[in-house]
Amino acid sequence: MTMQCFVLGSGGMMPMPTRRLTSVALRLEGSVYLLDCGEGTQIPYKELHLGQRALALVAITHLHADHVLGLPGMLMLRAQMPDPGPLVVLGPPGLQRFIDDVRRDLAIYINYTIEVREWRPEAAPVAYRDEQLQVLWAPLDHTVFCLGYRVEEHDRPGRFDPKRAEALDLPCGPLWGALQQGRSVETPAGLKVQPAEVLGPPRRGRHVAFITDTAPAPTMPRLLQEADLAFVEGMFLAEHAAEASSKKHLLVSQAAAAAAAAAVDQLVLVHLSPRYLEASYIARFNEEAGAEHPRARVARDGELIEVESSERPPRGGDGVEP
Amino acid sequence: MTMQCFVLGSGGMMPMPTRRLTSVALRLEGSVYLLDCGEGTQIPYKELHLGQRALALVAITHLHADHVLGLPGMLMLRAQMPDPGPLVVLGPPGLQRFIDDVRRDLAIYINYTIEVREWRPEAAPVAYRDEQLQVLWAPLDHTVFCLGYRVEEHDRPGRFDPKRAEALDLPCGPLWGALQQGRSVETPAGLKVQPAEVLGPPRRGRHVAFITDTAPAPTMPRLLQEADLAFVEGMFLAEHAAEASSKKHLLVSQAAAAAAAAAVDQLVLVHLSPRYLEASYIARFNEEAGAEHPRARVARDGELIEVESSERPPRGGDGVEP
Repeated sequence: MTMQCFVLGSGGMMPMPTRRLTSVALRLEGSVYLLDCGEGTQIPYKELHLGQRALALVAITHLHADHVLGLPGMLMLRAQMPDPGPLVVLGPPGLQRFIDDVRRDLAIYINYTIEVREWRPEAAPVAYRDEQLQVLWAPLDHTVFCLGYRVEEHDRPGRFDPKRAEALDLPCGPLWGALQQGRSVETPAGLKVQPAEVLGPPRRGRHVAFITDTAPAPTMPRLLQEADLAFVEGMFLAEHAAEASSKKHLLVSQAAAAAAAAAVDQLVLVHLSPRYLEASYIARFNEEAGAEHPRARVARDGELIEVESSERPPRGGDGVEP
Repeated sequence: MTMQCFVLGSGGMMPMPTRRLTSVALRLEGSVYLLDCGEGTQIPYKELHLGQRALALVAITHLHADHVLGLPGMLMLRAQMPDPGPLVVLGPPGLQRFIDDVRRDLAIYINYTIEVREWRPEAAPVAYRDEQLQVLWAPLDHTVFCLGYRVEEHDRPGRFDPKRAEALDLPCGPLWGALQQGRSVETPAGLKVQPAEVLGPPRRGRHVAFITDTAPAPTMPRLLQEADLAFVEGMFLAEHAAEASSKKHLLVSQAAAAAAAAAVDQLVLVHLSPRYLEASYIARFNEEAGAEHPRARVARDGELIEVESSERPPRGGDGVEP
């Protein structure tokens, strides 16, 4: 059961011939969860064969064109097959209006229900939940209202210990499977066995953060806290600090320091300014980020990152802190 | 003074990893005239270094997403430089509303005047005119209101004949230039010379037609008539005739027959259905088109076509027939 993150693009502001707009497709168990959707996102989506039917959720950070102008095309792509089932779209206030306007103005054909959930001040921290994960959202600090996201796989049962099972005279087979799934069983000798007797401690699910287009914001620590993988904007190098500040973006060093402070396992920088297209810049990005975080680097368009569990204990409850 | 047509894309319906959406950029004397603008058109526009400031006109055929969803991004691209000057955008009724809605919904920054000209039943056949060309429009026959376009370079003076100039004892130099520009001059011997004495007959400007997303329509002959180059949709091969008919598209053979009947010099097929991505289809397209028109072929994304003059005589007047 691998959790995969596909980097559909890593650029900011506008799509470039050599760098697409920032978007990440998280795939788990045949479902795809898409984070941001700028102009052209459907192209790498198709290139990577992610599948229209698999798309379960689109989460939009904010209503700037480079994060949302690809959404109509993605919605239309999904309408290419019969009965694709409902789709949930998360985003800021105003997202419903944008979708409605474009659908009406361009007479877009959609053959499924689009459930748009706009963030509200009274919104719960969990924006979306299905059988395998939940998605949290929280406001960031940009020139327009912007959301950060955190995808949290549900906590998983502990690892099955075959030696303990054998010690209890439990034959390998369906009884093992039942225990792994959390059900108690009876041994051939009539002994009752509880799952906890053969399982290790419960394991936290894998958590992925997605934070782009923001000045340093007070919600970032919670969104990043102990994430296994975090995509954070690294729009500017230190030499452009004044511009980053006035445009409410993060410096690479700020992104990396925030990730380090939150004990993020792996940081991948996205949303690079188009001024940094030359390959020589990448080393500088990795250097400025690496000075703050030991596992930080720039994303590569089209790459696949397998999310590994950091084997942290669950926080308990539904994973939402008060 | 070359007239260049860049094929930014040749596909229909949606942008594909190996075929972009149909759009043509016509360049003449440093100005660029863009025909249609689907999702992602700004990417080849940048790739081909056409220049934001050069963009003088965008002509949209109709309000389906694959022809117009790249327009907001193109407008934003042009706003990346200071004072780019006004831009004219031609299109069907409803185009202004689409632009206004997206600008408002996504808070798009534009630092220049966008003059949107929507076709109306009482509209003149010439939609746009500047110092070097004019653009005609006419309704086609699609599932939504759709326009065909024809770009007509102004008629040019006849070719200068050096032998006739020498026979009149006119020395090569500024006097030749003045005559070429239509001014009368005096020879060193005091003889008055009129331009007509050294110029051949006036030549028609170069004409390019752009027709996509339509069933065979009564306006097509006028849009195509004796064009030096015509881009016409070739969405379907003959085997999909029923679908072409129900969706109001042209078969390749219909496009080529119409171009042949109108004495078009060169036909380039665009707006291919995404079902024809495999290279083997291209030969079939060229075959079905070639059976009807001797110079017909499928467009290639990114190609440059230099428009050659067919040296036809001007029609007289402003080139618009009654």
